[in-house]
Amino acid sequence: MNRLTVGLIQQSCSDNRSATVDKTISLIRQAADRGARLITLQELHTGPYFCQCEETSFFDRAEPVPGPSTEQFGAIARELGVVIVSSLFERRAPGLYHNTAVVLERDGSIAGMYRKMHIPDDPAFYEKFYFTPGDLGFRPIRTSVGKLGVLVCWDQWYPEAARLMALAGAELLIYPTAIGWDPADTRDEQERQLDAWITVQRGHAIANGLPVVAINRVGLETDPSGVGNGIQFWGNSFVAGCQGEFLGRGSTDREEVMVVDLEMGRSERVRRIWPFLRDRRIDAFADLTRRFIDGE
Amino acid sequence: MNRLTVGLIQQSCSDNRSATVDKTISLIRQAADRGARLITLQELHTGPYFCQCEETSFFDRAEPVPGPSTEQFGAIARELGVVIVSSLFERRAPGLYHNTAVVLERDGSIAGMYRKMHIPDDPAFYEKFYFTPGDLGFRPIRTSVGKLGVLVCWDQWYPEAARLMALAGAELLIYPTAIGWDPADTRDEQERQLDAWITVQRGHAIANGLPVVAINRVGLETDPSGVGNGIQFWGNSFVAGCQGEFLGRGSTDREEVMVVDLEMGRSERVRRIWPFLRDRRIDAFADLTRRFIDGE
Repeated sequence: MNRLTVGLIQQSCSDNRSATVDKTISLIRQAADRGARLITLQELHTGPYFCQCEETSFFDRAEPVPGPSTEQFGAIARELGVVIVSSLFERRAPGLYHNTAVVLERDGSIAGMYRKMHIPDDPAFYEKFYFTPGDLGFRPIRTSVGKLGVLVCWDQWYPEAARLMALAGAELLIYPTAIGWDPADTRDEQERQLDAWITVQRGHAIANGLPVVAINRVGLETDPSGVGNGIQFWGNSFVAGCQGEFLGRGSTDREEVMVVDLEMGRSERVRRIWPFLRDRRIDAFADLTRRFIDGE
Repeated sequence: MNRLTVGLIQQSCSDNRSATVDKTISLIRQAADRGARLITLQELHTGPYFCQCEETSFFDRAEPVPGPSTEQFGAIARELGVVIVSSLFERRAPGLYHNTAVVLERDGSIAGMYRKMHIPDDPAFYEKFYFTPGDLGFRPIRTSVGKLGVLVCWDQWYPEAARLMALAGAELLIYPTAIGWDPADTRDEQERQLDAWITVQRGHAIANGLPVVAINRVGLETDPSGVGNGIQFWGNSFVAGCQGEFLGRGSTDREEVMVVDLEMGRSERVRRIWPFLRDRRIDAFADLTRRFIDGE
Protein backbone atom coordinates (compact mmCIF):
# COMPACT_ATOMS: atom_id res chain seq x y z
CA MET A 1 0.00 0.00 0.00
CA ASN A 2 1.32 3.40 -0.95
CA ARG A 3 0.87 5.19 2.35
CA LEU A 4 1.74 8.81 3.02
CA THR A 5 1.88 10.07 6.58
CA VAL A 6 1.10 13.77 6.76
CA GLY A 7 1.77 16.10 9.66
CA LEU A 8 -0.17 19.32 10.31
CA ILE A 9 1.24 21.98 12.62
CA GLN A 10 -1.51 24.10 14.19
CA GLN A 11 -0.07 26.84 16.37
CA SER A 12 -0.23 30.40 17.61
CA CYS A 13 2.32 33.00 16.52
CA SER A 14 3.85 36.05 18.17
CA ASP A 15 5.78 39.11 17.06
CA ASN A 16 8.96 37.39 18.22
CA ARG A 17 9.96 35.73 14.97
CA SER A 18 12.72 33.55 16.35
CA ALA A 19 10.58 32.25 19.20
CA THR A 20 7.76 31.52 16.74
CA VAL A 21 10.03 29.71 14.31
CA ASP A 22 11.73 27.79 17.13
CA LYS A 23 8.33 26.58 18.29
CA THR A 24 7.40 25.56 14.74
CA ILE A 25 10.63 23.62 14.36
CA SER A 26 10.06 21.85 17.65
CA LEU A 27 6.56 20.86 16.47
CA ILE A 28 7.98 19.72 13.12
CA ARG A 29 10.35 17.43 15.04
CA GLN A 30 7.39 15.97 16.93
CA ALA A 31 5.55 15.31 13.67
CA ALA A 32 8.61 13.64 12.14
CA ASP A 33 9.06 11.54 15.29
CA ARG A 34 5.49 10.33 14.84
CA GLY A 35 6.26 9.25 11.29
CA ALA A 36 5.21 12.21 9.16
CA ARG A 37 7.04 12.39 5.82
CA LEU A 38 5.15 15.46 4.62
CA ILE A 39 4.77 18.28 7.14
CA THR A 40 2.43 21.17 6.43
CA LEU A 41 2.51 24.58 8.08
CA GLN A 42 -0.17 27.23 8.37
CA GLU A 43 -0.31 30.45 6.35
CA LEU A 44 2.36 33.06 7.17
CA HIS A 45 3.52 30.98 10.10
CA THR A 46 6.62 32.99 10.99
CA GLY A 47 4.65 35.69 12.79
CA PRO A 48 1.28 37.22 13.53
CA TYR A 49 -1.25 37.69 10.75
CA PHE A 50 -0.30 41.30 10.03
CA CYS A 51 -3.07 42.14 7.54
CA GLN A 52 -5.56 43.37 10.13
CA CYS A 53 -4.61 46.91 9.18
CA GLU A 54 -2.79 48.63 6.33
CA GLU A 55 0.64 49.66 7.55
CA THR A 56 3.54 50.31 5.16
CA SER A 57 6.19 49.39 7.76
CA PHE A 58 4.84 45.83 7.76
CA PHE A 59 6.41 45.30 4.35
CA ASP A 60 9.68 45.04 6.31
CA ARG A 61 8.48 41.59 7.36
CA ALA A 62 8.75 40.32 3.79
CA GLU A 63 11.75 38.27 2.74
CA PRO A 64 13.19 36.95 -0.50
CA VAL A 65 12.66 33.41 -1.76
CA PRO A 66 15.18 31.80 -1.44
CA GLY A 67 15.94 33.61 1.79
CA PRO A 68 16.27 33.22 5.55
CA SER A 69 13.12 31.13 6.03
CA THR A 70 13.72 28.76 3.15
CA GLU A 71 17.26 28.29 4.56
CA GLN A 72 15.95 27.53 8.01
CA PHE A 73 13.12 25.24 6.98
CA GLY A 74 15.23 23.68 4.25
CA ALA A 75 17.83 22.78 6.88
CA ILE A 76 15.28 21.07 9.10
CA ALA A 77 13.73 19.30 6.09
CA ARG A 78 17.16 17.94 5.21
CA GLU A 79 18.00 17.00 8.78
CA LEU A 80 14.75 15.08 9.27
CA GLY A 81 14.39 13.84 5.70
CA VAL A 82 10.89 15.23 5.32
CA VAL A 83 9.08 17.43 2.81
CA ILE A 84 7.83 20.71 4.34
CA VAL A 85 5.13 23.04 3.02
CA SER A 86 5.97 26.53 4.23
CA SER A 87 4.04 29.79 3.77
CA LEU A 88 5.94 33.07 3.55
CA PHE A 89 5.57 36.79 2.91
CA GLU A 90 7.69 37.03 -0.23
CA ARG A 91 9.59 40.17 -1.21
CA ARG A 92 10.04 39.70 -4.93
CA ALA A 93 11.25 43.19 -5.77
CA PRO A 94 11.13 46.58 -4.06
CA GLY A 95 7.41 47.33 -3.78
CA LEU A 96 6.32 43.90 -5.10
CA TYR A 97 5.24 41.31 -2.58
CA HIS A 98 3.38 37.99 -2.63
CA ASN A 99 1.77 35.55 -0.24
CA THR A 100 3.82 32.52 -1.23
CA ALA A 101 3.88 28.86 -0.31
CA VAL A 102 7.28 27.25 -0.69
CA VAL A 103 7.78 23.50 -0.66
CA LEU A 104 11.10 22.26 0.73
CA GLU A 105 12.31 18.87 -0.51
CA ARG A 106 13.78 16.39 1.96
CA ASP A 107 17.26 17.28 0.74
CA GLY A 108 16.63 20.87 1.76
CA SER A 109 16.21 22.23 -1.76
CA ILE A 110 13.22 24.22 -2.94
CA ALA A 111 10.89 21.82 -4.77
CA GLY A 112 8.64 24.59 -5.98
CA MET A 113 6.50 27.51 -4.99
CA TYR A 114 2.94 28.74 -5.35
CA ARG A 115 1.95 32.39 -5.18
CA LYS A 116 -1.55 32.84 -3.73
CA MET A 117 -3.80 33.55 -6.68
CA HIS A 118 -7.00 34.75 -4.99
CA ILE A 119 -6.37 37.66 -2.65
CA PRO A 120 -9.09 38.61 -0.16
CA ASP A 121 -9.90 42.04 1.12
CA ASP A 122 -12.42 42.61 3.80
CA PRO A 123 -12.35 44.17 7.24
CA ALA A 124 -9.46 42.65 9.26
CA PHE A 125 -8.13 40.86 6.16
CA TYR A 126 -6.66 43.72 4.09
CA GLU A 127 -4.58 41.46 1.89
CA LYS A 128 -5.00 43.38 -1.35
CA PHE A 129 -2.85 46.08 0.23
CA TYR A 130 0.02 43.69 0.87
CA PHE A 131 -0.04 40.94 -1.76
CA THR A 132 0.11 41.08 -5.53
CA PRO A 133 -2.04 38.26 -6.92
CA GLY A 134 0.04 35.24 -7.92
CA ASP A 135 1.35 34.83 -11.44
CA LEU A 136 2.40 31.18 -11.35
CA GLY A 137 -1.04 29.74 -12.05
CA PHE A 138 -2.46 26.61 -10.47
CA ARG A 139 0.35 24.11 -10.89
CA PRO A 140 1.07 21.24 -8.54
CA ILE A 141 4.58 20.92 -7.14
CA ARG A 142 6.47 17.68 -7.80
CA THR A 143 8.11 16.21 -4.71
CA SER A 144 9.46 12.88 -3.52
CA VAL A 145 6.13 12.24 -1.75
CA GLY A 146 3.89 13.09 -4.70
CA LYS A 147 2.47 15.99 -6.69
CA LEU A 148 1.21 18.54 -4.18
CA GLY A 149 -1.65 20.86 -5.07
CA VAL A 150 -0.66 23.68 -2.76
CA LEU A 151 -3.14 26.54 -2.55
CA VAL A 152 -3.48 29.24 0.10
CA CYS A 153 -6.41 30.31 2.31
CA TRP A 154 -8.83 32.42 0.21
CA ASP A 155 -8.24 30.01 -2.69
CA GLN A 156 -10.10 27.44 -0.62
CA TRP A 157 -13.44 29.05 -1.46
CA TYR A 158 -12.85 28.61 -5.21
CA PRO A 159 -13.78 25.28 -6.82
CA GLU A 160 -11.92 26.40 -9.94
CA ALA A 161 -8.58 26.42 -8.10
CA ALA A 162 -9.06 22.90 -6.74
CA ARG A 163 -10.22 21.63 -10.12
CA LEU A 164 -7.28 23.10 -12.01
CA MET A 165 -4.87 21.49 -9.55
CA ALA A 166 -6.65 18.15 -9.99
CA LEU A 167 -6.58 18.45 -13.78
CA ALA A 168 -2.86 19.13 -13.62
CA GLY A 169 -2.37 15.89 -11.73
CA ALA A 170 -2.26 16.95 -8.08
CA GLU A 171 -2.44 13.95 -5.74
CA LEU A 172 -3.59 15.94 -2.75
CA LEU A 173 -4.73 19.48 -2.02
CA ILE A 174 -3.04 21.47 0.75
CA TYR A 175 -4.36 24.75 2.13
CA PRO A 176 -2.17 26.75 4.56
CA THR A 177 -4.68 29.10 6.15
CA ALA A 178 -5.18 31.99 8.55
CA ILE A 179 -8.87 32.28 9.23
CA GLY A 180 -10.85 33.12 12.30
CA TRP A 181 -13.80 34.80 13.84
CA ASP A 182 -14.64 38.39 14.43
CA PRO A 183 -15.10 38.17 18.22
CA ALA A 184 -18.08 40.52 17.86
CA ASP A 185 -20.06 38.10 15.68
CA THR A 186 -22.83 36.01 17.19
CA ARG A 187 -22.14 32.38 18.06
CA ASP A 188 -24.57 31.30 15.31
CA GLU A 189 -22.74 33.30 12.67
CA GLN A 190 -19.39 31.98 13.93
CA GLU A 191 -20.61 28.39 13.66
CA ARG A 192 -21.98 28.93 10.16
CA GLN A 193 -18.65 30.39 9.05
CA LEU A 194 -16.53 27.58 10.50
CA ASP A 195 -18.86 24.92 9.10
CA ALA A 196 -18.87 26.59 5.67
CA TRP A 197 -15.07 26.76 5.63
CA ILE A 198 -14.81 23.05 6.34
CA THR A 199 -17.69 22.08 4.05
CA VAL A 200 -16.54 23.89 0.94
CA GLN A 201 -13.11 22.23 1.20
CA ARG A 202 -14.61 18.79 1.83
CA GLY A 203 -16.58 19.55 -1.34
CA HIS A 204 -13.31 19.98 -3.26
CA ALA A 205 -12.16 16.58 -1.97
CA ILE A 206 -15.40 15.00 -3.20
CA ALA A 207 -15.64 16.76 -6.56
CA ASN A 208 -12.04 15.87 -7.40
CA GLY A 209 -11.58 12.55 -5.63
CA LEU A 210 -8.56 13.89 -3.74
CA PRO A 211 -7.56 14.18 -0.10
CA VAL A 212 -7.57 17.71 1.32
CA VAL A 213 -5.26 19.01 4.06
CA ALA A 214 -6.11 22.35 5.69
CA ILE A 215 -3.84 23.90 8.30
CA ASN A 216 -5.02 26.88 10.31
CA ARG A 217 -3.66 28.91 13.20
CA VAL A 218 -5.11 29.33 16.71
CA GLY A 219 -5.17 32.16 19.20
CA LEU A 220 -6.53 35.67 19.47
CA GLU A 221 -4.52 38.32 17.65
CA THR A 222 -5.40 41.94 18.26
CA ASP A 223 -5.52 44.64 15.58
CA PRO A 224 -2.23 46.60 15.81
CA SER A 225 -4.08 49.76 14.78
CA GLY A 226 -6.54 49.37 17.64
CA VAL A 227 -9.45 49.92 15.27
CA GLY A 228 -10.76 46.38 14.70
CA ASN A 229 -11.98 43.68 17.06
CA GLY A 230 -9.02 41.39 16.40
CA ILE A 231 -9.29 37.87 15.04
CA GLN A 232 -9.93 34.72 17.03
CA PHE A 233 -8.22 32.17 14.78
CA TRP A 234 -10.39 29.08 14.83
CA GLY A 235 -7.94 26.21 14.37
CA ASN A 236 -9.90 23.16 13.21
CA SER A 237 -7.12 22.07 10.92
CA PHE A 238 -8.35 18.92 9.23
CA VAL A 239 -7.70 16.19 6.71
CA ALA A 240 -10.50 14.90 4.50
CA GLY A 241 -10.34 11.77 2.38
CA CYS A 242 -11.34 11.39 -1.26
CA GLN A 243 -15.03 11.11 -0.39
CA GLY A 244 -14.84 14.14 1.90
CA GLU A 245 -14.78 12.00 5.05
CA PHE A 246 -12.84 13.29 8.06
CA LEU A 247 -9.52 11.55 8.60
CA GLY A 248 -8.41 13.97 11.29
CA ARG A 249 -9.60 17.19 12.85
CA GLY A 250 -7.96 19.60 15.26
CA SER A 251 -9.32 21.61 18.15
CA THR A 252 -10.61 25.17 18.03
CA ASP A 253 -8.12 26.66 20.46
CA ARG A 254 -5.11 24.43 21.13
CA GLU A 255 -1.70 24.22 19.52
CA GLU A 256 -1.25 20.69 18.26
CA VAL A 257 0.57 18.37 15.94
CA MET A 258 -1.74 16.16 13.90
CA VAL A 259 -0.40 13.12 12.09
CA VAL A 260 -2.68 11.41 9.58
CA ASP A 261 -2.12 8.44 7.27
CA LEU A 262 -3.25 8.77 3.67
CA GLU A 263 -3.60 5.75 1.42
CA MET A 264 -2.55 7.24 -1.90
CA GLY A 265 -4.12 4.57 -4.13
CA ARG A 266 -7.56 5.39 -2.82
CA SER A 267 -8.03 8.37 -5.14
CA GLU A 268 -8.11 6.19 -8.23
CA ARG A 269 -10.42 3.64 -6.60
CA VAL A 270 -12.88 6.37 -5.64
CA ARG A 271 -12.68 7.96 -9.08
CA ARG A 272 -13.62 4.59 -10.59
CA ILE A 273 -16.90 4.51 -8.70
CA TRP A 274 -17.41 8.27 -9.02
CA PRO A 275 -15.93 9.06 -12.45
CA PHE A 276 -16.60 12.79 -12.39
CA LEU A 277 -13.53 13.59 -14.48
CA ARG A 278 -14.87 11.35 -17.26
CA ASP A 279 -18.05 13.34 -17.81
CA ARG A 280 -17.14 17.01 -17.46
CA ARG A 281 -18.96 19.02 -20.16
CA ILE A 282 -15.85 20.85 -21.28
CA ASP A 283 -17.66 21.84 -24.49
CA ALA A 284 -19.98 23.98 -22.36
CA PHE A 285 -17.52 25.45 -19.84
CA ALA A 286 -16.08 28.35 -21.83
CA ASP A 287 -18.07 30.92 -19.85
CA LEU A 288 -16.18 29.99 -16.68
CA THR A 289 -13.59 32.51 -17.82
CA ARG A 290 -16.16 35.31 -17.74
CA ARG A 291 -16.69 37.64 -14.80
CA PHE A 292 -20.46 37.36 -15.15
CA ILE A 293 -22.86 36.34 -17.89
CA ASP A 294 -24.89 39.50 -18.26
CA GLY A 295 -28.34 39.62 -19.73
CA GLU A 296 -29.31 35.98 -19.29
CA MET B 1 -38.57 40.95 3.10
CA ASN B 2 -38.59 39.09 -0.18
CA ARG B 3 -39.56 35.62 1.05
CA LEU B 4 -39.96 32.59 -1.16
CA THR B 5 -41.65 29.51 0.25
CA VAL B 6 -40.39 26.37 -1.45
CA GLY B 7 -41.99 22.94 -1.36
CA LEU B 8 -40.08 19.68 -1.89
CA ILE B 9 -41.94 16.48 -2.73
CA GLN B 10 -40.00 13.39 -1.63
CA GLN B 11 -41.82 10.22 -2.62
CA SER B 12 -41.65 6.66 -3.89
CA CYS B 13 -42.78 5.75 -7.40
CA SER B 14 -44.34 2.68 -8.96
CA ASP B 15 -44.86 1.31 -12.45
CA ASN B 16 -48.43 2.54 -12.27
CA ARG B 17 -47.95 5.95 -13.84
CA SER B 18 -51.39 7.35 -13.06
CA ALA B 19 -51.25 6.25 -9.43
CA THR B 20 -47.76 7.78 -9.11
CA VAL B 21 -48.79 11.06 -10.70
CA ASP B 22 -52.01 11.21 -8.65
CA LYS B 23 -49.94 10.82 -5.48
CA THR B 24 -47.56 13.56 -6.62
CA ILE B 25 -50.44 15.91 -7.33
CA SER B 26 -51.96 15.22 -3.93
CA LEU B 27 -48.59 16.05 -2.32
CA ILE B 28 -48.31 19.20 -4.45
CA ARG B 29 -51.70 20.29 -3.06
CA GLN B 30 -50.42 19.75 0.46
CA ALA B 31 -47.34 21.86 -0.26
CA ALA B 32 -49.47 24.64 -1.75
CA ASP B 33 -51.82 24.49 1.24
CA ARG B 34 -48.80 25.05 3.46
CA GLY B 35 -47.85 28.16 1.49
CA ALA B 36 -45.36 26.91 -1.08
CA ARG B 37 -45.19 29.11 -4.19
CA LEU B 38 -42.43 27.08 -5.83
CA ILE B 39 -42.87 23.30 -5.73
CA THR B 40 -39.99 21.04 -6.71
CA LEU B 41 -40.26 17.39 -7.76
CA GLN B 42 -37.64 14.67 -7.81
CA GLU B 43 -35.92 13.32 -10.92
CA LEU B 44 -38.10 11.26 -13.32
CA HIS B 45 -40.93 11.39 -10.82
CA THR B 46 -43.65 9.85 -13.02
CA GLY B 47 -42.40 6.30 -12.49
CA PRO B 48 -39.63 4.04 -11.26
CA TYR B 49 -36.01 4.85 -12.00
CA PHE B 50 -35.80 2.65 -15.09
CA CYS B 51 -32.04 2.96 -15.77
CA GLN B 52 -31.01 0.00 -13.62
CA CYS B 53 -30.68 -2.04 -16.82
CA GLU B 54 -30.48 -1.35 -20.55
CA GLU B 55 -33.81 -2.26 -22.11
CA THR B 56 -34.95 -0.79 -25.44
CA SER B 57 -38.66 -1.14 -24.61
CA PHE B 58 -38.18 1.40 -21.80
CA PHE B 59 -37.88 4.15 -24.41
CA ASP B 60 -41.66 3.78 -24.66
CA ARG B 61 -41.80 5.63 -21.35
CA ALA B 62 -40.49 8.78 -22.97
CA GLU B 63 -42.86 11.58 -23.91
CA PRO B 64 -42.69 14.80 -25.88
CA VAL B 65 -42.29 18.23 -24.29
CA PRO B 66 -44.84 19.76 -24.40
CA GLY B 67 -46.81 16.56 -23.83
CA PRO B 68 -49.01 14.69 -21.41
CA SER B 69 -46.99 15.45 -18.27
CA THR B 70 -46.48 19.13 -18.96
CA GLU B 71 -50.25 19.31 -19.59
CA GLN B 72 -51.03 17.60 -16.30
CA PHE B 73 -48.52 19.50 -14.17
CA GLY B 74 -49.25 22.72 -16.02
CA ALA B 75 -52.92 22.36 -15.14
CA ILE B 76 -52.21 21.90 -11.44
CA ALA B 77 -49.70 24.78 -11.48
CA ARG B 78 -52.42 27.01 -12.96
CA GLU B 79 -55.11 25.78 -10.57
CA LEU B 80 -52.94 26.37 -7.49
CA GLY B 81 -51.10 29.42 -8.82
CA VAL B 82 -47.68 27.89 -8.14
CA VAL B 83 -44.49 27.34 -10.10
CA ILE B 84 -43.60 23.64 -10.47
CA VAL B 85 -40.22 22.09 -11.32
CA SER B 86 -40.89 18.81 -13.07
CA SER B 87 -38.43 16.17 -14.33
CA LEU B 88 -39.32 14.09 -17.38
CA PHE B 89 -38.01 11.50 -19.81
CA GLU B 90 -38.17 13.57 -22.99
CA ARG B 91 -38.69 12.05 -26.43
CA ARG B 92 -37.30 14.73 -28.71
CA ALA B 93 -37.27 12.73 -31.95
CA PRO B 94 -37.39 9.04 -32.81
CA GLY B 95 -34.27 7.60 -31.22
CA LEU B 96 -33.30 10.85 -29.46
CA TYR B 97 -34.13 11.19 -25.78
CA HIS B 98 -33.15 13.46 -22.90
CA ASN B 99 -33.46 13.65 -19.14
CA THR B 100 -35.23 16.98 -18.99
CA ALA B 101 -36.42 19.30 -16.26
CA VAL B 102 -39.41 21.41 -17.24
CA VAL B 103 -40.53 24.43 -15.24
CA LEU B 104 -44.25 25.18 -15.30
CA GLU B 105 -45.25 28.77 -14.66
CA ARG B 106 -48.20 29.54 -12.37
CA ASP B 107 -50.38 30.23 -15.40
CA GLY B 108 -49.70 26.67 -16.59
CA SER B 109 -47.33 27.63 -19.39
CA ILE B 110 -43.85 26.22 -19.82
CA ALA B 111 -41.40 28.78 -18.38
CA GLY B 112 -38.38 26.89 -19.66
CA MET B 113 -36.53 23.63 -19.69
CA TYR B 114 -33.12 22.23 -18.87
CA ARG B 115 -31.69 19.09 -20.44
CA LYS B 116 -29.37 17.23 -18.05
CA MET B 117 -25.86 18.01 -19.19
CA HIS B 118 -23.80 15.48 -17.23
CA ILE B 119 -24.96 11.92 -17.82
CA PRO B 120 -23.73 9.19 -15.46
CA ASP B 121 -23.07 5.61 -16.30
CA ASP B 122 -22.18 3.09 -13.70
CA PRO B 123 -23.67 -0.18 -12.50
CA ALA B 124 -27.42 0.34 -11.80
CA PHE B 125 -27.31 3.83 -13.33
CA TYR B 126 -26.99 3.13 -17.07
CA GLU B 127 -28.05 6.59 -18.15
CA LYS B 128 -25.71 6.95 -21.10
CA PHE B 129 -27.82 4.29 -22.82
CA TYR B 130 -31.00 6.30 -22.43
CA PHE B 131 -30.17 10.00 -22.41
CA THR B 132 -28.38 12.16 -24.92
CA PRO B 133 -26.37 14.80 -23.04
CA GLY B 134 -28.18 18.11 -22.92
CA ASP B 135 -27.59 20.81 -25.52
CA LEU B 136 -29.19 23.79 -23.83
CA GLY B 137 -26.21 24.70 -21.65
CA PHE B 138 -26.38 25.94 -18.09
CA ARG B 139 -28.98 28.67 -18.28
CA PRO B 140 -31.31 29.65 -15.47
CA ILE B 141 -35.02 29.72 -16.16
CA ARG B 142 -36.87 32.98 -15.60
CA THR B 143 -40.09 32.59 -13.61
CA SER B 144 -42.45 34.73 -11.57
CA VAL B 145 -40.64 33.55 -8.40
CA GLY B 146 -37.13 34.23 -9.64
CA LYS B 147 -34.40 32.90 -11.89
CA LEU B 148 -34.12 29.19 -11.21
CA GLY B 149 -30.82 27.38 -11.71
CA VAL B 150 -32.32 23.97 -12.44
CA LEU B 151 -29.79 21.15 -12.76
CA VAL B 152 -30.34 17.40 -12.53
CA CYS B 153 -28.78 14.71 -10.32
CA TRP B 154 -25.28 13.85 -11.69
CA ASP B 155 -24.78 17.59 -12.36
CA GLN B 156 -24.73 18.03 -8.59
CA TRP B 157 -21.19 16.65 -8.39
CA TYR B 158 -19.87 19.34 -10.79
CA PRO B 159 -18.88 22.71 -9.33
CA GLU B 160 -18.68 24.05 -12.90
CA ALA B 161 -22.43 23.56 -13.42
CA ALA B 162 -23.35 25.40 -10.25
CA ARG B 163 -20.89 28.20 -11.01
CA LEU B 164 -22.17 28.72 -14.55
CA MET B 165 -25.73 28.96 -13.27
CA ALA B 166 -24.61 31.49 -10.66
CA LEU B 167 -22.71 33.52 -13.25
CA ALA B 168 -25.83 33.59 -15.42
CA GLY B 169 -27.79 35.07 -12.54
CA ALA B 170 -29.52 32.09 -10.94
CA GLU B 171 -31.10 33.03 -7.62
CA LEU B 172 -31.27 29.48 -6.34
CA LEU B 173 -29.99 26.07 -7.42
CA ILE B 174 -32.46 23.18 -7.73
CA TYR B 175 -31.43 19.53 -8.15
CA PRO B 176 -34.13 16.95 -8.92
CA THR B 177 -32.38 13.68 -8.07
CA ALA B 178 -32.65 9.89 -8.03
CA ILE B 179 -29.79 8.58 -5.92
CA GLY B 180 -29.53 5.73 -3.50
CA TRP B 181 -27.49 2.94 -2.05
CA ASP B 182 -26.42 -0.37 -3.41
CA PRO B 183 -27.97 -2.55 -0.69
CA ALA B 184 -24.84 -4.72 -0.83
CA ASP B 185 -22.53 -1.89 0.25
CA THR B 186 -21.33 -1.65 3.85
CA ARG B 187 -23.00 0.77 6.22
CA ASP B 188 -19.77 2.82 6.37
CA GLU B 189 -19.64 3.17 2.60
CA GLN B 190 -23.33 4.07 2.49
CA GLU B 191 -22.82 6.79 5.08
CA ARG B 192 -19.81 8.24 3.26
CA GLN B 193 -21.80 8.36 0.01
CA LEU B 194 -24.82 10.08 1.53
CA ASP B 195 -22.66 12.56 3.41
CA ALA B 196 -20.62 13.31 0.27
CA TRP B 197 -23.77 13.89 -1.76
CA ILE B 198 -25.03 16.42 0.77
CA THR B 199 -21.62 18.03 1.35
CA VAL B 200 -20.71 18.68 -2.27
CA GLN B 201 -24.04 20.45 -2.82
CA ARG B 202 -23.72 22.48 0.37
CA GLY B 203 -20.33 23.41 -1.08
CA HIS B 204 -22.04 24.82 -4.17
CA ALA B 205 -24.28 26.93 -1.93
CA ILE B 206 -21.23 28.30 -0.12
CA ALA B 207 -19.01 28.88 -3.17
CA ASN B 208 -21.80 30.75 -4.96
CA GLY B 209 -23.70 32.37 -2.10
CA LEU B 210 -26.94 30.77 -3.25
CA PRO B 211 -29.55 28.54 -1.64
CA VAL B 212 -29.62 24.94 -2.85
CA VAL B 213 -32.70 22.73 -3.07
CA ALA B 214 -32.17 18.96 -3.61
CA ILE B 215 -35.13 16.61 -4.05
CA ASN B 216 -34.58 12.87 -3.94
CA ARG B 217 -36.80 9.80 -4.05
CA VAL B 218 -37.28 7.13 -1.36
CA GLY B 219 -37.97 3.42 -1.47
CA LEU B 220 -36.31 0.26 -2.71
CA GLU B 221 -36.60 -0.34 -6.44
CA THR B 222 -35.50 -3.71 -7.79
CA ASP B 223 -33.56 -4.25 -11.01
CA PRO B 224 -36.10 -5.32 -13.67
CA SER B 225 -33.43 -7.52 -15.27
CA GLY B 226 -32.87 -9.37 -12.02
CA VAL B 227 -29.12 -8.91 -12.35
CA GLY B 228 -28.37 -6.05 -9.96
CA ASN B 229 -29.02 -5.57 -6.26
CA GLY B 230 -31.62 -2.86 -6.78
CA ILE B 231 -31.35 0.67 -5.42
CA GLN B 232 -32.39 1.83 -1.96
CA PHE B 233 -33.16 5.49 -2.70
CA TRP B 234 -31.92 7.45 0.26
CA GLY B 235 -34.28 10.42 0.46
CA ASN B 236 -32.62 13.15 2.53
CA SER B 237 -34.00 15.88 0.35
CA PHE B 238 -32.70 19.12 1.78
CA VAL B 239 -32.49 22.87 1.51
CA ALA B 240 -29.25 24.69 2.30
CA GLY B 241 -28.90 28.43 2.74
CA CYS B 242 -26.29 30.72 1.20
CA GLN B 243 -23.67 29.74 3.76
CA GLY B 244 -24.43 26.04 3.30
CA GLU B 245 -26.43 25.82 6.52
CA PHE B 246 -29.36 23.39 6.65
CA LEU B 247 -32.75 25.04 6.36
CA GLY B 248 -34.60 21.75 6.05
CA ARG B 249 -33.78 18.08 5.71
CA GLY B 250 -35.95 15.07 4.93
CA SER B 251 -35.87 11.53 6.25
CA THR B 252 -34.05 8.59 4.70
CA ASP B 253 -37.11 6.44 4.08
CA ARG B 254 -40.40 8.32 4.32
CA GLU B 255 -42.49 10.09 1.73
CA GLU B 256 -42.89 13.67 2.80
CA VAL B 257 -43.71 17.20 1.84
CA MET B 258 -41.13 19.71 3.04
CA VAL B 259 -41.92 23.41 3.05
CA VAL B 260 -39.05 25.83 3.64
CA ASP B 261 -38.91 29.63 3.66
CA LEU B 262 -36.08 31.31 1.78
CA GLU B 263 -35.20 34.95 2.35
CA MET B 264 -34.16 35.96 -1.15
CA GLY B 265 -32.21 39.08 -0.17
CA ARG B 266 -29.80 37.02 1.90
CA SER B 267 -27.70 35.99 -1.10
CA GLU B 268 -26.50 39.52 -1.71
CA ARG B 269 -25.84 40.12 1.99
CA VAL B 270 -23.72 36.95 2.22
CA ARG B 271 -21.88 37.83 -0.98
CA ARG B 272 -20.94 41.19 0.54
CA ILE B 273 -19.14 39.51 3.43
CA TRP B 274 -17.84 36.65 1.23
CA PRO B 275 -17.22 38.37 -2.12
CA PHE B 276 -16.00 35.29 -3.97
CA LEU B 277 -17.39 36.49 -7.29
CA ARG B 278 -15.27 39.65 -7.03
CA ASP B 279 -11.95 37.84 -6.95
CA ARG B 280 -12.22 34.91 -9.38
CA ARG B 281 -8.94 34.62 -11.36
CA ILE B 282 -10.67 34.41 -14.72
CA ASP B 283 -7.35 35.24 -16.42
CA ALA B 284 -6.07 31.85 -15.18
CA PHE B 285 -9.15 29.68 -15.73
CA ALA B 286 -8.84 28.83 -19.42
CA ASP B 287 -7.68 25.28 -18.70
CA LEU B 288 -11.04 24.47 -17.12
CA THR B 289 -12.19 23.66 -20.64
CA ARG B 290 -9.54 20.94 -20.97
CA ARG B 291 -10.14 17.27 -20.22
CA PHE B 292 -6.83 17.02 -18.40
CA ILE B 293 -3.61 19.01 -18.32
CA ASP B 294 -1.14 16.39 -19.41
CA GLY B 295 2.54 16.51 -18.66
CA GLU B 296 2.47 18.91 -15.72
